[in-house]
Amino acid sequence: MQRYRLALIGFGNVGQGFTQILRDKGEQLARRFDVQYQIVAVSDLLKGSLYDPDGLDATALLEAIQNKGHIQNLPAPHQGWDALKTINQTNADAVIEISYTDLKTGEPALTHIRTALALGKHVVTTNKGPIALRYPELAALAREKGAEIGVEGTVMSGTPALRVGQELLGGTSISKVQGILNGTTNYILTQMENGASYQQALAQAQELGYAEADPTGDVEGHDAAGKVVILANLLMEAPLTMADVSCQGITQVSPADIAEAKAAGERWKLIGAVEQTGHGVEASVKPLRIPLSHPLASISGATNAITYTTDLLDEVTLVGPGAGRLETGYALLGDLLAIHRNSK
Amino acid sequence: MQRYRLALIGFGNVGQGFTQILRDKGEQLARRFDVQYQIVAVSDLLKGSLYDPDGLDATALLEAIQNKGHIQNLPAPHQGWDALKTINQTNADAVIEISYTDLKTGEPALTHIRTALALGKHVVTTNKGPIALRYPELAALAREKGAEIGVEGTVMSGTPALRVGQELLGGTSISKVQGILNGTTNYILTQMENGASYQQALAQAQELGYAEADPTGDVEGHDAAGKVVILANLLMEAPLTMADVSCQGITQVSPADIAEAKAAGERWKLIGAVEQTGHGVEASVKPLRIPLSHPLASISGATNAITYTTDLLDEVTLVGPGAGRLETGYALLGDLLAIHRNSK
Repeated sequence: MQRYRLALIGFGNVGQGFTQILRDKGEQLARRFDVQYQIVAVSDLLKGSLYDPDGLDATALLEAIQNKGHIQNLPAPHQGWDALKTINQTNADAVIEISYTDLKTGEPALTHIRTALALGKHVVTTNKGPIALRYPELAALAREKGAEIGVEGTVMSGTPALRVGQELLGGTSISKVQGILNGTTNYILTQMENGASYQQALAQAQELGYAEADPTGDVEGHDAAGKVVILANLLMEAPLTMADVSCQGITQVSPADIAEAKAAGERWKLIGAVEQTGHGVEASVKPLRIPLSHPLASISGATNAITYTTDLLDEVTLVGPGAGRLETGYALLGDLLAIHRNSK
Repeated sequence: MQRYRLALIGFGNVGQGFTQILRDKGEQLARRFDVQYQIVAVSDLLKGSLYDPDGLDATALLEAIQNKGHIQNLPAPHQGWDALKTINQTNADAVIEISYTDLKTGEPALTHIRTALALGKHVVTTNKGPIALRYPELAALAREKGAEIGVEGTVMSGTPALRVGQELLGGTSISKVQGILNGTTNYILTQMENGASYQQALAQAQELGYAEADPTGDVEGHDAAGKVVILANLLMEAPLTMADVSCQGITQVSPADIAEAKAAGERWKLIGAVEQTGHGVEASVKPLRIPLSHPLASISGATNAITYTTDLLDEVTLVGPGAGRLETGYALLGDLLAIHRNSK
């Protein structure tokens, strides 16, 4: 049985979902994969920080959050360590970076990840910021230090869009990747097709927790653009940055546009795409009218989907959830299991 | 650079497609994965058998097949070895089992695979027969001998349906798997929806090479049933056999049925399914009317698709080719790369 000690940097929804999965799946993981994961540290600016080299109790962590909204009163040998002290001074083998996302600077997650990799600790993260901004640098640092960096949760939450492309389709050449990479905008477009106005659909998305109070990042396409950059870097070996993505959101799509597409047997989708062209790799996010027969046309609501165009298999499409507490928590577990598989 | 020496048992379409891929992908595989594959032996009852411990030339093998239909005149230190002698006496590290499929006995592939694994040689195969009949025994033998057995090509050709379920979704619990697992019948149903009669659609499928002269295995659902058994064994740890699958093909689906479904906003699909139920795991192949909004409804023609129902990600669907020379050849390469990844 191989044991991994984990430090969670951040303890919001995703961290709690991940902790719940570990609490419930211990027996299955031991039996199927001969592996055990033990949370030894949690460090969260608001909810508190704990470190016990012998392991923290997942059930107690989740109960404290549920009952009090924080973990500050739980017993532990060490309390109140900040993120960097937690990364530097705990006995964790792997750092789970799930602090907040900043697509402009990548901080503070970027510093967390650099620090952990420099110590030879594995990193898994669902944080798009540092990965969209600095993946090539971070991947090189990981290789140099003999550590691994897993970023599955940055695109389509726990749906394994990156490892399908990198590992399972790794022997093909991928010439194009396109997908519905943002659930909020797909939900809004689906509701508009059902008759809602843009404002009504946005309000519904906010009510359901799909869209944030300030929905700019979703509806202007920036979130999808970050994912497109990650796909370009990981699946097409193209070191693009955010500035390379031609980006247009859904705010200009009108009910008349929707009706016109419907009448023509088509449907508006916000499509993120990276494509090998005659003049290099081109990346874009924009609303496109696609025929109903296209595999991406039937993806409705908050579901995400990605189509890989390859030399040997032509098109392969993967459809699954793009967000959610357990769904994104699973991305972290999937990465840890892949690291375990690759380390045997 | 890790080198693997390969023995191909069978040199039909799939073996030739695989050889073509190795011929064209050497540089990419070395650069991405630090691995090299060298065919040292080919043994085919009709096309001839060659063995060179230092490696055979992929280009020469393909040219001989193209120009003469056999490889009997190519120079090699050893000629005419049968399958078992090739498995037993060559220096191959991995045996590529791609002889013909027999869903009743699994032979001769079953003996080939047992022999190779007993010698500690890895086996990769696209042959449903032995896997649908004896997977638990073969997997146990592989584990005991420290070898690996890769069977990705037995379901959906090179579309990585098995490794997505086993590896990438391995931390979830899969309660149900259902899919369109046979391209021939899906093509026929799609053509019938477009107005063709069953006989016309079958004739078209035969013309295109999708259906064999005797189409029984496809249209009666036996091919899909074999795949369902494999999915049950690999993804749900349920040791089902062919006899456990309730199996019904598409020969009873009439143009009137098709029209009736169409009028109701539904579509007939031949669905293979395995499901965890209150009274154990149940497996079936049968034509079902599914709503157009279902992800499997939009899968048309010879394309295949599979939906995994999981505890943590709800539904994840994978769509891709279900047959083809390069597509199935890629399944073999995908398995070899996975063995390489897992062995590092």
